[in-house]
Amino acid sequence: MNISVVKVPIASPDDTSELKRLIDQGDIVPSRVIAVLGKTEGNGCVNDFTRGYAVRTLKSFFSGYVGEEAAGSISYIMSGGTEGVLAPHHTVISRSVRSAGEEAAADGTKSLAVGVVHTRDFRPEELGREAQIREVASAVRKAMADARIADAADVHFVQIKCPLLTAAGMLDARSRGVEPIVDDTYKSMGYSRGASALGAAIALGELGEGEVGEADVCADWSKYSGVASTSAGSELACCEVIVFGNSAEAAGDLYMSHGVMKDAIDGASLLSLLRENASAEVVQVLAKAEADPSGLIRGRRHTMLNDSDINHTRHARAAVGAVLASLCGDPMIYVSGGAEHQGPPGGGPVAVIFRRNTN
Amino acid sequence: MNISVVKVPIASPDDTSELKRLIDQGDIVPSRVIAVLGKTEGNGCVNDFTRGYAVRTLKSFFSGYVGEEAAGSISYIMSGGTEGVLAPHHTVISRSVRSAGEEAAADGTKSLAVGVVHTRDFRPEELGREAQIREVASAVRKAMADARIADAADVHFVQIKCPLLTAAGMLDARSRGVEPIVDDTYKSMGYSRGASALGAAIALGELGEGEVGEADVCADWSKYSGVASTSAGSELACCEVIVFGNSAEAAGDLYMSHGVMKDAIDGASLLSLLRENASAEVVQVLAKAEADPSGLIRGRRHTMLNDSDINHTRHARAAVGAVLASLCGDPMIYVSGGAEHQGPPGGGPVAVIFRRNTN
Amino acid sequence: MNISVVKVPIASPDDTSELKRLIDQGDIVPSRVIAVLGKTEGNGCVNDFTRGYAVRTLKSFFSGYVGEEAAGSISYIMSGGTEGVLAPHHTVISRSVRSAGEEAAADGTKSLAVGVVHTRDFRPEELGREAQIREVASAVRKAMADARIADAADVHFVQIKCPLLTAAGMLDARSRGVEPIVDDTYKSMGYSRGASALGAAIALGELGEGEVGEADVCADWSKYSGVASTSAGSELACCEVIVFGNSAEAAGDLYMSHGVMKDAIDGASLLSLLRENASAEVVQVLAKAEADPSGLIRGRRHTMLNDSDINHTRHARAAVGAVLASLCGDPMIYVSGGAEHQGPPGGGPVAVIFRRNTN
Amino acid sequence: MNISVVKVPIASPDDTSELKRLIDQGDIVPSRVIAVLGKTEGNGCVNDFTRGYAVRTLKSFFSGYVGEEAAGSISYIMSGGTEGVLAPHHTVISRSVRSAGEEAAADGTKSLAVGVVHTRDFRPEELGREAQIREVASAVRKAMADARIADAADVHFVQIKCPLLTAAGMLDARSRGVEPIVDDTYKSMGYSRGASALGAAIALGELGEGEVGEADVCADWSKYSGVASTSAGSELACCEVIVFGNSAEAAGDLYMSHGVMKDAIDGASLLSLLRENASAEVVQVLAKAEADPSGLIRGRRHTMLNDSDINHTRHARAAVGAVLASLCGDPMIYVSGGAEHQGPPGGGPVAVIFRRNTN
Repeated sequence: MNISVVKVPIASPDDTSELKRLIDQGDIVPSRVIAVLGKTEGNGCVNDFTRGYAVRTLKSFFSGYVGEEAAGSISYIMSGGTEGVLAPHHTVISRSVRSAGEEAAADGTKSLAVGVVHTRDFRPEELGREAQIREVASAVRKAMADARIADAADVHFVQIKCPLLTAAGMLDARSRGVEPIVDDTYKSMGYSRGASALGAAIALGELGEGEVGEADVCADWSKYSGVASTSAGSELACCEVIVFGNSAEAAGDLYMSHGVMKDAIDGASLLSLLRENASAEVVQVLAKAEADPSGLIRGRRHTMLNDSDINHTRHARAAVGAVLASLCGDPMIYVSGGAEHQGPPGGGPVAVIFRRNTN
Repeated sequence: MNISVVKVPIASPDDTSELKRLIDQGDIVPSRVIAVLGKTEGNGCVNDFTRGYAVRTLKSFFSGYVGEEAAGSISYIMSGGTEGVLAPHHTVISRSVRSAGEEAAADGTKSLAVGVVHTRDFRPEELGREAQIREVASAVRKAMADARIADAADVHFVQIKCPLLTAAGMLDARSRGVEPIVDDTYKSMGYSRGASALGAAIALGELGEGEVGEADVCADWSKYSGVASTSAGSELACCEVIVFGNSAEAAGDLYMSHGVMKDAIDGASLLSLLRENASAEVVQVLAKAEADPSGLIRGRRHTMLNDSDINHTRHARAAVGAVLASLCGDPMIYVSGGAEHQGPPGGGPVAVIFRRNTN
Repeated sequence: MNISVVKVPIASPDDTSELKRLIDQGDIVPSRVIAVLGKTEGNGCVNDFTRGYAVRTLKSFFSGYVGEEAAGSISYIMSGGTEGVLAPHHTVISRSVRSAGEEAAADGTKSLAVGVVHTRDFRPEELGREAQIREVASAVRKAMADARIADAADVHFVQIKCPLLTAAGMLDARSRGVEPIVDDTYKSMGYSRGASALGAAIALGELGEGEVGEADVCADWSKYSGVASTSAGSELACCEVIVFGNSAEAAGDLYMSHGVMKDAIDGASLLSLLRENASAEVVQVLAKAEADPSGLIRGRRHTMLNDSDINHTRHARAAVGAVLASLCGDPMIYVSGGAEHQGPPGGGPVAVIFRRNTN
Repeated sequence: MNISVVKVPIASPDDTSELKRLIDQGDIVPSRVIAVLGKTEGNGCVNDFTRGYAVRTLKSFFSGYVGEEAAGSISYIMSGGTEGVLAPHHTVISRSVRSAGEEAAADGTKSLAVGVVHTRDFRPEELGREAQIREVASAVRKAMADARIADAADVHFVQIKCPLLTAAGMLDARSRGVEPIVDDTYKSMGYSRGASALGAAIALGELGEGEVGEADVCADWSKYSGVASTSAGSELACCEVIVFGNSAEAAGDLYMSHGVMKDAIDGASLLSLLRENASAEVVQVLAKAEADPSGLIRGRRHTMLNDSDINHTRHARAAVGAVLASLCGDPMIYVSGGAEHQGPPGGGPVAVIFRRNTN
């Protein structure tokens, strides 16, 4: 396995001009693409259609190269919201098709490996509940195997795209006599992200199987994963899981590392990663952002949770995105909002894909 | 002259509980207060009434200590908008009443000095035009004299609160047959801020008197002040000017320095100030933020200017506030939006009030 | 008792110029004012400080006429949000001080009567729960007695201002080991409004005492009051109750009637009232608005509940305000958002204060 | 010519399920479709991608029936913004392919006729200026001919979709040394809509050719068209013009009429149309909405133009949409925002497509 990661700026949710250029000049090979992580310029909340628009555009675009079925099997994970300095873009992840054995480094050096798995579709009332936690845990384990990562310590980022409850979904559940976990589309996004993160924590051994239940979702913030990054959207009914990590069975010049932001202004967490890997080039930064549920940051009051004009996830992305961009010098990074059970309350995981300096 | 600067958290625009506590314990002496720079939690745009609410509250509060007239002569400069991590608070600036000569350091050490001056009231049609530029230039010179700062190089921050055009103001101008500079309350804020900043640049010799005219306002972004910080609000008709700098005729343990952010993620500008003054304590950070008018930051597209849900000043404050808070470790800093002609396009001034370590 | 009702336009939350003019010319007598119902131009949601700003302004204004204590005993009920065509204003309600017997009409004609009562302050965890329901029910009964209205059928509008859960309130409750009803400031407004409305329904016999419990709040929408209008704000900790109706012990030329809007476009409900009282003059229209929780209006999908940029209460006020203004020909009416348990789901009470044509 | 008009609800910008059902059962014949007027649930402002998303979806959908070229020749006019009660939907307009002569009524009865024409693409700097006015005037005349409407008095609605200035467009113009009409994407929408409306007014003889110039655009509000409805979007560079009216050369049971709303609450204008055509069935209502530029409605202050959280076009659509929906009893109507030079200031055209009762 050999993973390539290419950042592609987009001028709008349906822009594929730069992507086409990169394919034309051979930097991206459509048949090898396994996932696209996008940042699109919607509100990142319930009625953000830029995510679906981008997915529809990409599916149609890749269909022209590899056919509809292969294009449909690529994992498209769109995170809405480019508040503040954040730049809309796609991170295109490709995996070579040759056998892993051939490519693994002889000296046991671990390189970036990526595995992708989907869960089954969920019914509206399963979101934020036991079923979602367990299905995601199982999918994360499968994705690790797909990535040929044996040790959970080698996993540095688990990206999960999960569904949300729409008004229609709530009506559907109730028409069958069952009550969804929450009576609010916007809040349902938090429950779905939270249950997915707890599932990842179980799979990676961060939390014991018996330690976590649906009562913990959006309730016990002390339970979290340090590598899960989950984002909710209305454009899918299953969870899409992408595991990123390092594997001795992978080849190539990329590798990954991660830290955990303690709060929204904890730039030190990224700074440490950058210093420890000072000889390597930064390919992409991936992070989660959230408004501290305590209403405080470093003892100071923030107003994100009381703001009825701008959703707190938008505030949080703007803040964390700017902090990380100021350190890596690039606003075209992946910062996604809503970090329920992803890192400590008010904080979140931050991961970096590095390119080894091979000179 | 001896200047004291105290940061006071507020729980809402009308909260004076912590201010009262600080007065009770002698940290703030009402009769010495000359200015309050506040960050209040409104949208910082046209219909932000948190600024006026805070001013009304403070005036009434100080009236209880020093009477209505003295309370009315304090300069209340409220900047709306605490997006992202920013914490609502007031920065209370006091000046001792004893003569400057008595207090000046024998060794010529320069300490923080502050001068305050108001312009006359402006008519709606004067905003953003020649009259505002010239009146502000004159007021800045008077405020330097008031602060006993002789050399413009010793000025590190010029805070100006200026009026905006309301719907009523536009009707008024037109009823007298004159057209205001712009037909949009929100845009008028930029013109008023811009004209004020150009006035400061003239007064400080950053731009020549003959170099700047009203045609430059919100047009020629190459003309700017590196220390002006102007903010617009509907609660006043004149410009209030506060000059901050260092003077050999001032005593005390505070002093000031400043840098210029090249863009919204230029944390390096603050980092340099912090390193050069590593032995001193940071008392307060003051900065301006704006969305780069080019639509780009470090060559990457930002979406702040195309966002019809959130005004670009709100995005910019969230971004710059988080970058600076992550470096100084405190989200209770003064970051104000709309940096027209205040620093280079997309950037802005950043100033720090330090306390000398006297051990 | 003789009630006068005067509508006063305001140019901003702190504008009292027209109010002063009306007092100067004798149309409003400060010592007789018992309540002010205001529409202020904030977002009507959690961080709407225009309500508190207006209350502070009015208290200070009336203090100048009647002293601080009497000014403090006036009931200030501010409803934020003047979306669409709605015009910011105050409805000033005054009651003559002479004895009821003297003024009652000899022929038993019932005229407008108003009664005002406050509950005790609530703890954060009591909001949306049994305590709030029962205290409000008791306060409504007392306010009926205060208004000398014996028959619940003569009550046409019950305006209740109630508290909301702030981030601070939630922390406070949890610090005492109790969990507030909901973990979200914005949603808490609905619970507080809902519990208040159910309390009114009990007091007026619309629902039986044993029929309603806290499990019904924001859950069983079939239970509602046809005359309650409740609105939540952060500026108070108790509920303020104002009962409007007709009483044979009241004199004067005003009287009231009401209808119930079945949905947000049910203009017919107001049209009936206007036609039935065609010979009378419309003094003020008071109504509640909400987004239909089913997501549908007349079988068509609305998007108010899925909109993460604009809160659904803002959408609903804009819609209902315009429908009613188009019928009565005046956009300066009182339309308040969030009609939980106030009228049927998606609908709400609409009441009209009429002036008898005495020619 | 025989025109059919079918309203199709959509569950999201990319929903075609109901459209497909209507085609399956023969109510819509893809090869006859000439235009789709959609209301999509974005903000209707600069960054509303729901319009482009819907267009992309529809083009791809119709391609499956009639091929890419024919699908591309359909005129897709998407108006964003379904504030308040408005329901997202498409109005699908079809024209039979048989010759006009065959179908015309023998008795000279005029029936609904529709003509469609595109202008050439505009350069960014042409928007809001002379070039746009003249090209649109010419296109409206051609569309009348296409609809076989000889008399301008028979034209009841002219729908024009026009471009806006994006940040990229402004950079492009400036790179060629020319300045666009305005330095603000959002405001550019008004200029483009205004120039288009003035072009229509010229073509229909509402204004004389020599009476109107680019200096009038968004300046002289006394110049307007009573039937133009223009809407701006980033998804096209030309203007798409659709003329609706009645023609003796058209057959079928549909016909059209229109009125002009004097202000946002002028429901009487629609009520007159409904009463005059009481025996006919309402097929669709089409109208324009705007915030009165005077800041007043019926002498009362509105806050739409001072609101920095919600754009005034969103307020106006919510208000006008609700007023019209309350009268026709259906929230699934076409109400589009931004009525510059479309009807009098603060008002706008309202048109109704009726179906003759043939019993």
